[in-house]
Amino acid sequence: MRFVKIYDTTLRDGAQAEDITFILDDKLRIAKRLDDLGVHYIEGGWPGTNPKDDTFFKAVKTMRFSIAKIAAFGSTRKKGIAAENDQLLKALAAADTEVVTIFGKSWDVHVREALGCSPEENLAMIGDTLAYLRPGTRELFYDAEHFFDGFVADPDYALATLKAAAGSGADCIVLCDTNGGIMPWQLKDIIERVKKEIALPLGIHCHNDNGLGAANSLFAVEMGVDQVQGTINGYGERCGNANLCTIIPNLKIKMGIECISDTQLTRLKEVSRFVDGMANRVPDKHGPYVGESAFAHKGGIHASAVTKNPLTYEHIDPRLVGNEQRILVSDQSGHSNIRLKAKQLGIDLSAEDEKARQLLKNIKEMESKGYQFEGADASFELLVNRAIGRYKPSFRLRGFRTIVERRTGDKEPLSEATIMIDVDGRVEHTAATGNGPVNALDFAIRKALEKFYPELADMRLLDYKVRVITTEDGTAATVRVLIESGDKEDTWETLGVHPNIIQASWNALVDSIEYKLLKDEKKRRAKEGG
Amino acid sequence: MRFVKIYDTTLRDGAQAEDITFILDDKLRIAKRLDDLGVHYIEGGWPGTNPKDDTFFKAVKTMRFSIAKIAAFGSTRKKGIAAENDQLLKALAAADTEVVTIFGKSWDVHVREALGCSPEENLAMIGDTLAYLRPGTRELFYDAEHFFDGFVADPDYALATLKAAAGSGADCIVLCDTNGGIMPWQLKDIIERVKKEIALPLGIHCHNDNGLGAANSLFAVEMGVDQVQGTINGYGERCGNANLCTIIPNLKIKMGIECISDTQLTRLKEVSRFVDGMANRVPDKHGPYVGESAFAHKGGIHASAVTKNPLTYEHIDPRLVGNEQRILVSDQSGHSNIRLKAKQLGIDLSAEDEKARQLLKNIKEMESKGYQFEGADASFELLVNRAIGRYKPSFRLRGFRTIVERRTGDKEPLSEATIMIDVDGRVEHTAATGNGPVNALDFAIRKALEKFYPELADMRLLDYKVRVITTEDGTAATVRVLIESGDKEDTWETLGVHPNIIQASWNALVDSIEYKLLKDEKKRRAKEGG
Repeated sequence: MRFVKIYDTTLRDGAQAEDITFILDDKLRIAKRLDDLGVHYIEGGWPGTNPKDDTFFKAVKTMRFSIAKIAAFGSTRKKGIAAENDQLLKALAAADTEVVTIFGKSWDVHVREALGCSPEENLAMIGDTLAYLRPGTRELFYDAEHFFDGFVADPDYALATLKAAAGSGADCIVLCDTNGGIMPWQLKDIIERVKKEIALPLGIHCHNDNGLGAANSLFAVEMGVDQVQGTINGYGERCGNANLCTIIPNLKIKMGIECISDTQLTRLKEVSRFVDGMANRVPDKHGPYVGESAFAHKGGIHASAVTKNPLTYEHIDPRLVGNEQRILVSDQSGHSNIRLKAKQLGIDLSAEDEKARQLLKNIKEMESKGYQFEGADASFELLVNRAIGRYKPSFRLRGFRTIVERRTGDKEPLSEATIMIDVDGRVEHTAATGNGPVNALDFAIRKALEKFYPELADMRLLDYKVRVITTEDGTAATVRVLIESGDKEDTWETLGVHPNIIQASWNALVDSIEYKLLKDEKKRRAKEGG
Repeated sequence: MRFVKIYDTTLRDGAQAEDITFILDDKLRIAKRLDDLGVHYIEGGWPGTNPKDDTFFKAVKTMRFSIAKIAAFGSTRKKGIAAENDQLLKALAAADTEVVTIFGKSWDVHVREALGCSPEENLAMIGDTLAYLRPGTRELFYDAEHFFDGFVADPDYALATLKAAAGSGADCIVLCDTNGGIMPWQLKDIIERVKKEIALPLGIHCHNDNGLGAANSLFAVEMGVDQVQGTINGYGERCGNANLCTIIPNLKIKMGIECISDTQLTRLKEVSRFVDGMANRVPDKHGPYVGESAFAHKGGIHASAVTKNPLTYEHIDPRLVGNEQRILVSDQSGHSNIRLKAKQLGIDLSAEDEKARQLLKNIKEMESKGYQFEGADASFELLVNRAIGRYKPSFRLRGFRTIVERRTGDKEPLSEATIMIDVDGRVEHTAATGNGPVNALDFAIRKALEKFYPELADMRLLDYKVRVITTEDGTAATVRVLIESGDKEDTWETLGVHPNIIQASWNALVDSIEYKLLKDEKKRRAKEGG
């Protein structure tokens, strides 16, 4: 069975993306997760170019990895000086990594315009740099930047740069489509030619500017390359690098090529989400293999077919990559979808036809106002429970007020919430401050309710998201608030929709509390019953 | 020169996506834009399955299109009845479109499990349906659903379904990778075989579950198919359909195959944004060709090279698809980036080195707190003007307060803002109500300032976005508020970052007002000077 190695550059090339900034701790935590995923190489940064990368290489040396080797990235020496006098090459050697990857120019436009030197000097710069690093480096890779564009412009020169690297000790030559514009059939022809001239193992490093980054990487593997470079979630400058979350499952499941283990593959979705979390990026719902919607079925026909036989509308078993099938409740869904969804939540709606019809009507009305239950199962469960009359509100709101105030001389605004509720006629009136009005309101409602429901002390707010859903009215737009809550055992999501952000947040907060009480009640009953 | 036709199914298959719901007016407006873009076919829906689609086909008949033909989509007849008695086929005929596209089953799993009929009856259903529609239909297409999976399972039967369609009058046979799991080399082999057996024009309809939807579509064109189906921005169930915003520029620019005109191609980004707007989806910044970041340069080396010669890090001229080059200000940017960006804004920082250095430091500090100037040029311009001492605040805040209050019996919460400012010592103290606290604050500050600056009456808030940027603290998270404002001549973006959403919104609001005054002042001066 063929085997290819995965070279992750999320921390270096990925961090070049417009909207990504990793702090040191993020980088270290991501490196740990990449090792759990089983990638073979982790490119950590470019020593000597910024203090963050230098600190990373120091810190990472104290960590243990079971599979991954850490790679430092750097450029060929500056023109006109000896390799041993190049400050960046010294920094690279000082980073003391098992793997060093040097990038150099393959394309005359870059040699002349970016480096401002002759084609011959560029060849010398490649050779000198690798020869200088070779003795102290366990694995030495050469990234041929812009190789495909360079080859199209001047095949002989592009090949000469590879030969300079091969002749000076490179262990692997990585062909880079730096501008991300090559077409798969061109790439195939070029790799065919390279394989005739270069006997070393080859790697591939693609970008996604033409939307074919993953396809090109897979074609290169088909052509026999041994190493695939890419990033988690396809992070990277412009349209990103080739997406390892797409490449790895295609290699393993579709092409039968080994890279990471089956167990490691089941961590793919989790790693994808973790890295999005570190990068503070909203996960791509529709991302291949790992997206929240990748195995979600909305249309009535699809949803009913897929429950009979998943093969009908799923190209793989989602569990292979740690993902799962989801049946959606939506505008296009018929009664069967809602019943199915309710059933997944343990509620049988089959005998209650009139109620199910009313519920469907309510859901459609709420959707037209901007509700989307797809990410808020707890609110959906409450809605269903309310519809079938199984729900009893745990408190009644008499009123709330939030105030945000800032006076001359204040460093920060003051946020205060007051609240009055009653539980079976017993009134509680209290107040709290917070970082902002919603935070104050959250503290106040929980303070008021903990007297009656001490189990709420367990509960924490994990995530709070705001999305403006009708943007044409400026600040008068409707907002959708999605809250994730958790206790020691579970996490759950609730939502609220309203033009007033405080009211929308209130709705989501109340649902999160009601759900916690409902859930605990259910568990209590199950225990007593059992 | 080869020519392929573009068949857009954004309104039908695209609308199957989890998070997309189009109302009738959206669908009509999108159809108009698709015609402007030059697509040849617009699939509008499935007559008879929901009232929205029926209304669409009625309404669209009153519109004029310069290029696009409207297609109605439908299934083969139900088993066990004659085509002329099938209600959905009657609805399809009643929709009275120039083009009808019928989908049928190619895969025995689907025939048996989804239809519950014999392979022979399925062939009859395909033939009967097309024969019934043929006389009244100008162009009749056959979508072979799950064709590639069906071919892998049983090539002879899959080909027999195509022959049934071809023998009953189909004008074009569209091969569908419905589950989106086929690999390009498999697809190539299969199309090669189909071409030997079927003499009709072929089409391709791919999904993106393996991340290769666009690649597969382009390979099919390479193999000689005549029609490409897809959706704008790759909308569609699960991981979406093949993305026409990727396919069209690859066809035209990379493959030299005609489909839409050069002028139409320059509308691609605009159409992509328009459709995202209708669907209320956040545009994919990193989307190939049309993404906001597709030609954005952040790293110092890239930014400086690309300003010398765009070819160095851009695979095409962004203007071909209506996009543009952007130089970003960021963590990784050196002084040259900031100077360049300032220069694009008309501010020369070259002589002011100490100030530029201080500015860079400030920007890095602000970025660490969650500021991102990449989408907020107006706030960046104000920041630069403040740094070089060119900025004089137009008012001073003495204090503000927002109150949101809800009492028993209130249908809606009440939002009120009070504000006290002074302009050159003249104090204004006022109040306003609004839909929510930020809306009230927006009204109050403008009410207070319009006395001093009547030109603010021109200004409108166009968009208001909230993003929670550190989600670990629940409701105590930091929020980033991005505001888009406009007057009769311009639009501009400002931002504010703070744990308190009211304060973050305030910061963005103040910047939007200050920018408006600065901009008008600059114009006044330019006029007086000229």
